[in-house]
Amino acid sequence: MKKYADMTKEELTLLKEELEKAYQEQKDKGLNLDISRGKPGSEQLDLSMPMLDIMHSSAEMFAQDGTDVRNYGMLAGIPEARKLMGDLMGAEASQTIVFGNSSLNVMYDSIARSVLFGVMGSTPWKDLPHVKFLCPVPGYDRHFSVTQQFGFELISIPMTEDGPDMDMVEDYVNHDPEVKGIWCVPVYSNPGGAVYSEETVRRFAALTPAAPDFRIYWDNAYAIHHLYADHQREVLNILKECEKAGHPDIVYQFCSTSKITFSGAGIAAMSASKANIDDILSKIKWQTIGADKVNQLRHVRFFKDIHGMREHMKKHAAILRPKFDAVLHKLEKELEGLGIASWNHPLGGYFVSFNGTEGTAKRIVSLCKEAGLVLTGAGAAYPYGKDPADSNIRIAPSLPPVSEVEQAMELFAICVKLATVEKLLG
Amino acid sequence: MKKYADMTKEELTLLKEELEKAYQEQKDKGLNLDISRGKPGSEQLDLSMPMLDIMHSSAEMFAQDGTDVRNYGMLAGIPEARKLMGDLMGAEASQTIVFGNSSLNVMYDSIARSVLFGVMGSTPWKDLPHVKFLCPVPGYDRHFSVTQQFGFELISIPMTEDGPDMDMVEDYVNHDPEVKGIWCVPVYSNPGGAVYSEETVRRFAALTPAAPDFRIYWDNAYAIHHLYADHQREVLNILKECEKAGHPDIVYQFCSTSKITFSGAGIAAMSASKANIDDILSKIKWQTIGADKVNQLRHVRFFKDIHGMREHMKKHAAILRPKFDAVLHKLEKELEGLGIASWNHPLGGYFVSFNGTEGTAKRIVSLCKEAGLVLTGAGAAYPYGKDPADSNIRIAPSLPPVSEVEQAMELFAICVKLATVEKLLG
Repeated sequence: MKKYADMTKEELTLLKEELEKAYQEQKDKGLNLDISRGKPGSEQLDLSMPMLDIMHSSAEMFAQDGTDVRNYGMLAGIPEARKLMGDLMGAEASQTIVFGNSSLNVMYDSIARSVLFGVMGSTPWKDLPHVKFLCPVPGYDRHFSVTQQFGFELISIPMTEDGPDMDMVEDYVNHDPEVKGIWCVPVYSNPGGAVYSEETVRRFAALTPAAPDFRIYWDNAYAIHHLYADHQREVLNILKECEKAGHPDIVYQFCSTSKITFSGAGIAAMSASKANIDDILSKIKWQTIGADKVNQLRHVRFFKDIHGMREHMKKHAAILRPKFDAVLHKLEKELEGLGIASWNHPLGGYFVSFNGTEGTAKRIVSLCKEAGLVLTGAGAAYPYGKDPADSNIRIAPSLPPVSEVEQAMELFAICVKLATVEKLLG
Repeated sequence: MKKYADMTKEELTLLKEELEKAYQEQKDKGLNLDISRGKPGSEQLDLSMPMLDIMHSSAEMFAQDGTDVRNYGMLAGIPEARKLMGDLMGAEASQTIVFGNSSLNVMYDSIARSVLFGVMGSTPWKDLPHVKFLCPVPGYDRHFSVTQQFGFELISIPMTEDGPDMDMVEDYVNHDPEVKGIWCVPVYSNPGGAVYSEETVRRFAALTPAAPDFRIYWDNAYAIHHLYADHQREVLNILKECEKAGHPDIVYQFCSTSKITFSGAGIAAMSASKANIDDILSKIKWQTIGADKVNQLRHVRFFKDIHGMREHMKKHAAILRPKFDAVLHKLEKELEGLGIASWNHPLGGYFVSFNGTEGTAKRIVSLCKEAGLVLTGAGAAYPYGKDPADSNIRIAPSLPPVSEVEQAMELFAICVKLATVEKLLG
């Protein structure tokens, strides 16, 4: 295969005509495809249906400490759910709070509390002239949106295969008291699939923030979401590393079962140092009497323990692998060797991060859309939705069946080529 | 029976000795009773157990619009849950948002949003020098705590049998732009059991707030929580009255199924004008992808519609009535005619509001506690936990079995008498 960069103008013009024809053929199919969001497919949701058949009688509605889970109370969650979700995060039950169905909501509320009431006695952020938040890029659009909504200045930190550029992180965090937090997806990062290296985690734990109310927002969304049984990546335990480094309070960790049981009806949790947890509980006690404990107990009864949960994840992997394979095979077959694009080979998580030729991502997304394929908006993985290189596109193949993923990638590859040729011809 | 006020000092002294003896006998029983919170009893929770046996197969997991309730999405809730909860509030489905398990959380979030981002374009309250909130008293302690936590000035408004003192409400709301809201429990108010009269509701709807971002916080927590089939009180539809009066935007209405299905695992909802709902959705879209729709659908499948829900409430009433009867019979038998106390006779809701002789409430609560009976703290029904008359006590008989309610009230009556005699003897 000839690299596009090595082609003459004539060759490119000819190629463009071919691609326009192929694109038109795709368009004529009247496709209606969507690989825009990391939503589990229905087969995956079916895996947890037995969870709904677990509690029938009144006698089954009591937590291990005797709490009737149907009634009010238990602000921090029932003990066995704190244990299970703590195990998922490598945290003690006592340093874990279990919430309702959305970890995004838990993260948003954590920011909102800091803005309104401060962190462990600090000045509420609303009373500060300026707040900055670090955003490893490409990253999770909903993370960035939360901090944008609160009016913070979002600062992009480039991602490497080992995590965020730690030189830059240290420089900001240790010297600028306006920097109050950083968004992290340490395992199978969204969208790049990176797993933070041991060195990265240790450097996080060793941070000496200029702001005492700085927190690492450690969204461990894909902690056990491996695609390959023999290539399971793990990350160092951030809570323990922070403790060892003598900075137990600088991290909030989050997780949920949204991609373990039901995306819309799982349970979310948060873990942190005892001092942080006490601080948080002292504030959320005004907000609620407690989260849905019936659903908490339902989850514990279904999984029994973290081992049950890990076993369950193998079934997800079996469903997801062919979809990721379809994406990767198509990208390889159609684009490898052309010198116009690169992409990662994730070992877990929900995304393939695609990088096209600079200045083509928006055009690719728009070409796809016009032909019936919805992708995440170009630039979505960057603060303010602006990818300075206009090259990154997040591919989320989990929702549609394999055949549709294949169709989608067929079209996608044509659009990538066409947009690139257009760009090269200027 | 002789009124205490008519007794001589000698008679009172003798009475005190008798009461101390009776009190000591109670204490010797080693009681362990709790009538402090409006928690449903286990018999009531059992009523909704069939709700957990309603959804088994994947095919049953779809909302009427085809949404898979297990997956992400549907920020405003599924259509059929919006209809059901809208009907509970007299609101259209389109002006109703269904949330998770806690209406307190929905109310807290509504205040937090106003503080952080303003109301329909107004200045965020965090940027105002001073915010005032009206608190009809006695009222719901958790309402007052929320607004206290945000640092607002809480202004007590006396309750009458017809609702809050509307002269005072109008005076504050229509003239003071710092007044941003008022807490209301319009039906079977907590704790007084009042149902707002038609005139009260119309005067609320006719308010012309000095602050454009003033909202009535209409917590319709006990809308269908009647105790007597033939004495069901209803309140005028606040949304419709506000519309008619040309002020559709001045009210937020809240409700939940916490005292209909499971207190800790029901669903909560909010209704308001279209403009308010659009404003709210435009902000909560940063906070969450959506509430637990599996539980929303479970509720709809269980009740079918609002009629099913109303029928279900009759079963609650049958369980609650004997408990309220036990409270009222004991109060009548022991305290009527002594001129030392008054109380209401609620037709619904969860509380009896008791008013003792001025300056005795704290002493009564502490005497009860010492003898093994937990009551809501004296003053809890007032802003900052301070009842200026130190006379009000909230009695919540729903949780314990009838026999325990009787024991509790036996002790309570002795403590009331003893505290009053102590007070009279000075």
